[in-house]
Amino acid sequence: MKKLINDVHQVVRESLEGFALAHADLVDVHLDPDFVTRHHPKADGLVGIVSGGGSGHEPLHAGFVGEGMLDAAVPGPVFTSPTPDPILEATRASDHGAGVLHIVKNYTGDVLNFETAAEMAEMDDIEVTSVVVNDDVAVEDSLYTAGRRGVAGTVLVEKIAGAAAERGDDLAGVTAIATRVNDEVRSMGLALGPCTVPHAGTPSFELGDDEIELGIGIHGEPGYRRGRMESADVLTKELYERVRDDLGLATGERVVTLVNGMGGTPLSELYIVHRALAALLDADGVTIERSLVGNYVTSLEMPGASLTLLRVDDELLSLFDAPASTPAWK
Amino acid sequence: MKKLINDVHQVVRESLEGFALAHADLVDVHLDPDFVTRHHPKADGLVGIVSGGGSGHEPLHAGFVGEGMLDAAVPGPVFTSPTPDPILEATRASDHGAGVLHIVKNYTGDVLNFETAAEMAEMDDIEVTSVVVNDDVAVEDSLYTAGRRGVAGTVLVEKIAGAAAERGDDLAGVTAIATRVNDEVRSMGLALGPCTVPHAGTPSFELGDDEIELGIGIHGEPGYRRGRMESADVLTKELYERVRDDLGLATGERVVTLVNGMGGTPLSELYIVHRALAALLDADGVTIERSLVGNYVTSLEMPGASLTLLRVDDELLSLFDAPASTPAWK
Repeated sequence: MKKLINDVHQVVRESLEGFALAHADLVDVHLDPDFVTRHHPKADGLVGIVSGGGSGHEPLHAGFVGEGMLDAAVPGPVFTSPTPDPILEATRASDHGAGVLHIVKNYTGDVLNFETAAEMAEMDDIEVTSVVVNDDVAVEDSLYTAGRRGVAGTVLVEKIAGAAAERGDDLAGVTAIATRVNDEVRSMGLALGPCTVPHAGTPSFELGDDEIELGIGIHGEPGYRRGRMESADVLTKELYERVRDDLGLATGERVVTLVNGMGGTPLSELYIVHRALAALLDADGVTIERSLVGNYVTSLEMPGASLTLLRVDDELLSLFDAPASTPAWK
Repeated sequence: MKKLINDVHQVVRESLEGFALAHADLVDVHLDPDFVTRHHPKADGLVGIVSGGGSGHEPLHAGFVGEGMLDAAVPGPVFTSPTPDPILEATRASDHGAGVLHIVKNYTGDVLNFETAAEMAEMDDIEVTSVVVNDDVAVEDSLYTAGRRGVAGTVLVEKIAGAAAERGDDLAGVTAIATRVNDEVRSMGLALGPCTVPHAGTPSFELGDDEIELGIGIHGEPGYRRGRMESADVLTKELYERVRDDLGLATGERVVTLVNGMGGTPLSELYIVHRALAALLDADGVTIERSLVGNYVTSLEMPGASLTLLRVDDELLSLFDAPASTPAWK
């Protein structure tokens, strides 16, 4: 294992310290317990939003803390849920008198620990709601999940719910918007190879020279099949059709697309995937309203990509377009 | 070789097509010959700026076309200079009556082909100046270079010269600013592993399990030594001291820092490098005015990072801070 780190047990902490130094104008990093808040808190009376989960998916979540998105993020150890304590502290710091929404990816540890933190926050008279994101159409139930996994669609929930909170929607309203985004978003990914968790020291799985994993999870959890390497066009079509069919996407509808890199994929390849995706949507009579291409929800240095489609109407689109200023979304 | 591509000979073309589809609000992609221009051209009477070079370094250069940075970019084949013809067309498209600056990384093919294009443009009565970026302190002369190579510092030249053009400096003034940035910027990189050029099909070099290349070029050209893998702090110190000493950086001076990923490095590791860099600068009494951490000038999927320091004064800093709106800089 070759990584630009100092100590496998200090990766998250030292990375957070570097993140704090690089983005002191946008975020504050708190240690013991570890969580990240906006440097310029939002106004009193606005709903707060907290997300979090295991580290290793950067820029998710801390990269999306800032104006127009999250009030706070809680990074756990690599690929491991944060405990309730930092989630509680982040929730307290994000309450501006109007309650706090938790955006939680659907992994058993995250769901449990956010629930516990919410119960503790309610003892402080902070009203907390929760939306559990489960956009991955690849598999039902998985290594760390009952039901579907939450993957790259999470960033769209954070963006749009963040904009709703910023415009002054109340807690029920922000929660309803986040729920609607989760209902309208679907994703699926593939891996060309594994990643290596620092404290494990060896790759999380093995693939043959000509083998890929379709439906990969963002922690390297198995997908729905292993297959031979194919062209970008063939692979994009397979991902697209499963996402489209699950979403029930129909001619005349409108989408926001996200072609997401898993960490080790050149940007040029992601654009080739986007090219294929755009042609498929065009052939189906679906309009691409906005496109994201890049590393948003990664799996350390995993080579691979995921494809996310969000069905939008004018309201969701205007919230998507609303200004945001965070380390990773400007 | 596993890559999300369709045809090794169509990688650049298809990636450009995807780029055009994803960023139609910001850029126009022209084919035959291939170059990229701003979707909203700048006003008449302002200086144009063109850059370019081999592909495989995305988001450089096309990702920096837009308001406040480049008027046009010319992507060659992967790791291969574009020919004079597209450079000429890009120069014509970027002339708004005040002449055009070419920002060229110091590789023999790029220098020659930009020079030829400049001579052709002058026959059209377009005044052209050129700044050759050579910020890499690792080696003198290299596989494709006489003198020092141009690497990640290029993006800072593009940003600051772009801002000078946008505020209305004349061609001599924009050229002087770009020259000054090149004089004040130094970089050095390291690789933990190789990358694979699609049409080559095999890795560009080999490294042992515990071996790294210090002073790596952005095409995988040899650096100044191979060594054992060390901690991020130790490696950052070695890069930093060489960059600092070459730049002649002194206590009380001010810098913009760029910790640049080579394509296959997790963002979390880049922040650990930034943390080390910030401590070293602090110990030397140098003030970090602004920090960039991320993938700006990549080498396909190469794992590794480079470190860039730009000595700044108030003028360079205000140009660095000026608004820009491009696919990769917002």
